[in-house]
Amino acid sequence: MDISQDVQAIQDKLTQRRRDFHMFPESGWVEYRTAAIVAEQLNQLNYQVYVREDASRSSSRMGVPAAEVLQFHENRAISEGADPVWVEQMKGGHTAVVGVIRTGKPGPVIALRFDMDSNDLTESASESHRPVQEGFSSRHAGMMHACGHDGHTAIGLGVAEILAKHKDRLCGEIRLLFQPAEEGSRGAKSMVDAGWLDNVDYFFGGHIAFKSKTLGEIVASINGFLATTKINVTYTGIAAHAGAAPEEGRSALLAAAAASLHLNGISRHSGGATRINVGTLEAGSGRNIVADKALMKLETRGGTTELNHFVKNEAIRIIENVAIMYNVACEWEIVGEAPGAESSPELIPVIRQAVEQMGSVKSFIPSMDLGGSEDIVYMMNRVQQQGGKASYLLFGSPLEDGHHQVGFDFDENVLVIGTELLIRLVLACQETIL
Amino acid sequence: MDISQDVQAIQDKLTQRRRDFHMFPESGWVEYRTAAIVAEQLNQLNYQVYVREDASRSSSRMGVPAAEVLQFHENRAISEGADPVWVEQMKGGHTAVVGVIRTGKPGPVIALRFDMDSNDLTESASESHRPVQEGFSSRHAGMMHACGHDGHTAIGLGVAEILAKHKDRLCGEIRLLFQPAEEGSRGAKSMVDAGWLDNVDYFFGGHIAFKSKTLGEIVASINGFLATTKINVTYTGIAAHAGAAPEEGRSALLAAAAASLHLNGISRHSGGATRINVGTLEAGSGRNIVADKALMKLETRGGTTELNHFVKNEAIRIIENVAIMYNVACEWEIVGEAPGAESSPELIPVIRQAVEQMGSVKSFIPSMDLGGSEDIVYMMNRVQQQGGKASYLLFGSPLEDGHHQVGFDFDENVLVIGTELLIRLVLACQETIL
Amino acid sequence: MDISQDVQAIQDKLTQRRRDFHMFPESGWVEYRTAAIVAEQLNQLNYQVYVREDASRSSSRMGVPAAEVLQFHENRAISEGADPVWVEQMKGGHTAVVGVIRTGKPGPVIALRFDMDSNDLTESASESHRPVQEGFSSRHAGMMHACGHDGHTAIGLGVAEILAKHKDRLCGEIRLLFQPAEEGSRGAKSMVDAGWLDNVDYFFGGHIAFKSKTLGEIVASINGFLATTKINVTYTGIAAHAGAAPEEGRSALLAAAAASLHLNGISRHSGGATRINVGTLEAGSGRNIVADKALMKLETRGGTTELNHFVKNEAIRIIENVAIMYNVACEWEIVGEAPGAESSPELIPVIRQAVEQMGSVKSFIPSMDLGGSEDIVYMMNRVQQQGGKASYLLFGSPLEDGHHQVGFDFDENVLVIGTELLIRLVLACQETIL
Amino acid sequence: MDISQDVQAIQDKLTQRRRDFHMFPESGWVEYRTAAIVAEQLNQLNYQVYVREDASRSSSRMGVPAAEVLQFHENRAISEGADPVWVEQMKGGHTAVVGVIRTGKPGPVIALRFDMDSNDLTESASESHRPVQEGFSSRHAGMMHACGHDGHTAIGLGVAEILAKHKDRLCGEIRLLFQPAEEGSRGAKSMVDAGWLDNVDYFFGGHIAFKSKTLGEIVASINGFLATTKINVTYTGIAAHAGAAPEEGRSALLAAAAASLHLNGISRHSGGATRINVGTLEAGSGRNIVADKALMKLETRGGTTELNHFVKNEAIRIIENVAIMYNVACEWEIVGEAPGAESSPELIPVIRQAVEQMGSVKSFIPSMDLGGSEDIVYMMNRVQQQGGKASYLLFGSPLEDGHHQVGFDFDENVLVIGTELLIRLVLACQETIL
Repeated sequence: MDISQDVQAIQDKLTQRRRDFHMFPESGWVEYRTAAIVAEQLNQLNYQVYVREDASRSSSRMGVPAAEVLQFHENRAISEGADPVWVEQMKGGHTAVVGVIRTGKPGPVIALRFDMDSNDLTESASESHRPVQEGFSSRHAGMMHACGHDGHTAIGLGVAEILAKHKDRLCGEIRLLFQPAEEGSRGAKSMVDAGWLDNVDYFFGGHIAFKSKTLGEIVASINGFLATTKINVTYTGIAAHAGAAPEEGRSALLAAAAASLHLNGISRHSGGATRINVGTLEAGSGRNIVADKALMKLETRGGTTELNHFVKNEAIRIIENVAIMYNVACEWEIVGEAPGAESSPELIPVIRQAVEQMGSVKSFIPSMDLGGSEDIVYMMNRVQQQGGKASYLLFGSPLEDGHHQVGFDFDENVLVIGTELLIRLVLACQETIL
Repeated sequence: MDISQDVQAIQDKLTQRRRDFHMFPESGWVEYRTAAIVAEQLNQLNYQVYVREDASRSSSRMGVPAAEVLQFHENRAISEGADPVWVEQMKGGHTAVVGVIRTGKPGPVIALRFDMDSNDLTESASESHRPVQEGFSSRHAGMMHACGHDGHTAIGLGVAEILAKHKDRLCGEIRLLFQPAEEGSRGAKSMVDAGWLDNVDYFFGGHIAFKSKTLGEIVASINGFLATTKINVTYTGIAAHAGAAPEEGRSALLAAAAASLHLNGISRHSGGATRINVGTLEAGSGRNIVADKALMKLETRGGTTELNHFVKNEAIRIIENVAIMYNVACEWEIVGEAPGAESSPELIPVIRQAVEQMGSVKSFIPSMDLGGSEDIVYMMNRVQQQGGKASYLLFGSPLEDGHHQVGFDFDENVLVIGTELLIRLVLACQETIL
Repeated sequence: MDISQDVQAIQDKLTQRRRDFHMFPESGWVEYRTAAIVAEQLNQLNYQVYVREDASRSSSRMGVPAAEVLQFHENRAISEGADPVWVEQMKGGHTAVVGVIRTGKPGPVIALRFDMDSNDLTESASESHRPVQEGFSSRHAGMMHACGHDGHTAIGLGVAEILAKHKDRLCGEIRLLFQPAEEGSRGAKSMVDAGWLDNVDYFFGGHIAFKSKTLGEIVASINGFLATTKINVTYTGIAAHAGAAPEEGRSALLAAAAASLHLNGISRHSGGATRINVGTLEAGSGRNIVADKALMKLETRGGTTELNHFVKNEAIRIIENVAIMYNVACEWEIVGEAPGAESSPELIPVIRQAVEQMGSVKSFIPSMDLGGSEDIVYMMNRVQQQGGKASYLLFGSPLEDGHHQVGFDFDENVLVIGTELLIRLVLACQETIL
Repeated sequence: MDISQDVQAIQDKLTQRRRDFHMFPESGWVEYRTAAIVAEQLNQLNYQVYVREDASRSSSRMGVPAAEVLQFHENRAISEGADPVWVEQMKGGHTAVVGVIRTGKPGPVIALRFDMDSNDLTESASESHRPVQEGFSSRHAGMMHACGHDGHTAIGLGVAEILAKHKDRLCGEIRLLFQPAEEGSRGAKSMVDAGWLDNVDYFFGGHIAFKSKTLGEIVASINGFLATTKINVTYTGIAAHAGAAPEEGRSALLAAAAASLHLNGISRHSGGATRINVGTLEAGSGRNIVADKALMKLETRGGTTELNHFVKNEAIRIIENVAIMYNVACEWEIVGEAPGAESSPELIPVIRQAVEQMGSVKSFIPSMDLGGSEDIVYMMNRVQQQGGKASYLLFGSPLEDGHHQVGFDFDENVLVIGTELLIRLVLACQETIL
């Protein structure tokens, strides 16, 4: 069983799949086309495939779009080649997919996670942007894979294929989790609550590039995840003619502006890192009308769950009281949330050993701080709380432009590396008792 | 010559035209379909018709949309029945139309003004909204006649038709000015600068309803126009990941929020009324990104041109220095401006006399304060500076919903009243020496 | 009875009294020395003298200083020559004095008002300041007559003296009201509530200079008084070391800063003039401590009582909710309030006639707008509500520096003019039936 | 040589001195009485005593009070028993004192630092406050030893006395640095610039209590000093009557309020801890006057010197541009500054060994993070840059109230412990080669 050779053999397929996903990016909870392809592939590879409520708990999903939006994307996915049978099952934003091999032989439960959703960005149309040059840039205005999840999903299918090929040599149980809505920390919790992280002995997730910008570099364990909460706020005031009767108006725009400044002034904390960001603000309908609507999207973060709670609680008090101060109505909703987490240090030597068998890996970094948030932390925390080990890896790659930027692109050779490493980790864990 | 009877005879036509314009609303500088219909009608009535640079000076137009936007609407107008020959002549946002009767007989120069543009609103789809019930609500998402300009244009064509019918009884010169882009105070100046208000002896404009909500009520002279300036502001900061590197970001959203609050705090003035309104604010691209773009649309007003300048100058200093304070780039542009004005009191008795001949008018109010802005003031000021008399009237009507509201609708019986009164005023002025 | 000659004869006395009051300025409710001199003079002139609860209702006084402060000034007044018997009666901030002549003959009730309090300013020590040059500048640090009330009180005593001299020629009843605490609009209401403005037929008050800067100019009737409310706000947060534990602090300073900005942003009103001013702010105890205390002194104004209420209500909502937003405690107190008012136009010809008899008056202005607040409006409103006539006058004078400025000084020749005019008005009203 | 016994013998003297300093607290640069006592004691103990420019470089002193203030305190110090000869030498805010023993024998240069200044607080007058009960509370309104520097100075004199007693057993050179103006980080740099930290092999400073609240606990090395900058800002606007002419005013109060909020909103930094605090704000002269003056005292901090510079640079841009935005003049001054620092870990075992010889020490903590700023860091950095070792210690003590609180008091038994430990460290370092 020569894993390297197996993976090399599917390199073109990995690239093609990534490019296909890249052309048809789908953001959180509307990954119908992507998920339908994943489900169909797993099915063909004889995995037991779980979708809908079996894959994720409906009520634990955060930030699900409105019904019209979901329906629009269901139709679009079908028009772009998604199998209507799968889409039918996934309707209403049930785009999580789980593929399972139960070998029947004694052995550990191993779970791998791959996130599928895209960002809400319109991809660069610049001639110097490789996806444009090579014809695989996004067909969807306002959606783009600018975080590498297209690559993650391609890796997931590559891992699925090769593990399936060697199924008779496996033991225990293997769960491949294809997760929707990682952006905004909205999806992982629903798969945790469906039970897929229960009784897991070893759990891995990985991300292309991020802080590792060198092809052939592997970071074994990411720490310093910031806990985070995502909040949407709507202020509703009273419109009035700004010249004729300004006193009759209640400006939702001013309320949102004031909230933005006061949120930004939340006290620093001596206990560690905190963050606050009002990322978007849309307010008002016309220049000469006192603005009666404002929508803010914001997030809080903290070096620990407690620090995040400090910022979140301050934020909510400010959000609510600015409304009273400006005499406008206020609605707010938590649309995403993730705690902090740490990778299990016991896995570092396991990963190091796997890496040493791979000619394609030139550099090994045992541990690194993220300084960001990733909702895989829900999964890691559940695994670790039940005694399992979990690690979040980086697969290094040079980038054309930063994550979440319109010119984002990575070196597709990283697909082979990620695929091989995860397969080797599955195999290593089957032989390991930590 | 029984004017009342003449006007009654075209009542249905007035209503049909108004409803046609209502169904195809076009906002400032893209009134291609509306203006093409107006030009064609005037032409058929044997007016001398002026369009393009002959009707308005290009360089004096304020807030003209981008070339793509103009082109989109040129095409749409044609697809919705506008005569391509007229549209071709109006290309590039030249939608002003002037129709002139030069009688060759001695007599005064009389000018009337009708504004044609719609608002940027999506009309109510409520079943209780009469335009919905009767099938003439807006076909254009994001555009709606919510200020009665559809009615004004219909009145203008009605006046044109009946004056043409009695052409041989007229003396002097009559100019019918169909103005684009009144909303935002962007269009009047360009027609003034093309010379159409030069040497005018009598000038009238009128508005449906506004502060007069009773059918059959006429306000003879509007005063207390607030001078106004319309400003667009763009802040450009630096995007950064709000968790991983907040310090690398420069938030355009916070700059705009701060500007909104500080603008709102511009000092009151002991010299009279002032206003400031940040009407719309759009900022940011994603929740977890430091916002690198923000666009604000705002306006200042003052009881006099000087008071407006006080607020405008304060505003510009604030706009610019907030940018430096937040280390973001700033661009601002004045996209509309109008001075203050007063109607000529000498016209009140003339109007009173005309009104007294009309059975349809029940109530006469000599003068009223507007407390708003209207760019007709450019025209009134020019006429008065050259010794002419000018008055801005209201034609009372009940309203379903306020001006600039999505449920706006008026009583179409006002069309007959407005048409008749303006014709009577033309005739009266031909006989009057003030 | 040659009034001009009578007044000329006491010119030196008027000047000396003004300078004595100027040297010993006393701010609102601590005018012990001033009031004791007034009471003693009136007593010697055989007026019926009312002090304490007889002169003003205790519970209607606004913004009375703390007990220690009152006691300090009682002692100081005695040490500076005030008669301890009068001071004893005035203890606890009861410094209003009323002197009455009841002639027993039929005739109108006429009331005149003179305000006695100083400002909270430290007078200029500049050599170029006349009170310094001539040795009568303030002996009290932090207190100064910078609004001319020293002159008003001197005029009041001059009027008292000459009216007393001609007592047998008077009819009806004459009330001389010496009012404390005009600054901050705190005192007039308490004298109204004690009944001194009931059943008054004619009422006059006057101010030196203000908007009339020419000696010999008289403004007969002041209008456009702005209604006003004076509010003190205290925020109490939690102190904390700003480096070691910023999250434990609750900054009263930031709350007050936010309140200042948001108050300043209260909407303009289409109904007329409004004002808001946070005049003083003191916050914090040390640079490296999160500030736990902040005190703001602010005022609202409006062209009418209703407009002032609009601003006041907005202000209070902001003041309270900023506190909740910053998680600090808030106390606020209304320490002064005055409605709007208008002078009775019927008095203008009476005043004109009186003025015409005076060689010292060169210029007569029938009416002028104040654009400020004066708590005499309580008195005017009460008189007018009961059918009496009231007017507030200006006695023109050049000024060295503006009102409420540390270099304030007026031309003392105005004292003769003010005294003579008020006496003439009393006599005129006795003969007049309006 | 039994150090413990030596120190026990002077315990009463330590307490008396501490209480004497406590009764006569003197804040930064006016420690005339304290420094005169220190200088006289060192002189009597045969130290070489350096004052004036010999002890600190004049031009490197930060935040020196105005000349009148210095002179007031020079006179007061003499009136409270300071030796006029010493005060004369210290005039103008030269209150640093250095006492040196040069043994002439080979050996290391060892320096100890004791800070002498008090806080700007008025001490609690509560009967439950021990200094009140025992009659040694502050005689100076507005000044109080609320940070234990009275104890530090007493310890310094105790160390001086016992080292002098054993002078013949010492080698190398010993420098005792009595520093003014530690509060506000204003004094240390001037002693560094006078050369007293050059060529130092071992350097110690210590603080009573702070984060160690147990008598008998010693923290060997403080780390995590926050770098800091202290800034005073004055805004000067234009006063105007807030009712009559608000537009003529330029509010320094609003500028300061805006600056406070915007400063508070300076971005967090992913590189580590940052702080900003506007500690005090005083603005305005009267409620009805647009405020023409505002003074803010603020500080920035950072986990490293670079992080502090990030905040400081942001702060200065905000401070300056708020002024332009509000059209007011702005002056700002850096009145204190300190870099970050780390104690030398090599000294931990030395301190542990010394502590183990002391029966009075029950608990030893090798290292602790401060989370605050102390200007001793200038001294530590200079020593370490030249190859020496430096450590900042804590001498544990229970506290009645927190540092910088008006009820602050410590357990005076800590004086013996601090004195003994520093003497033992001097002796240990003489025998040690690290």
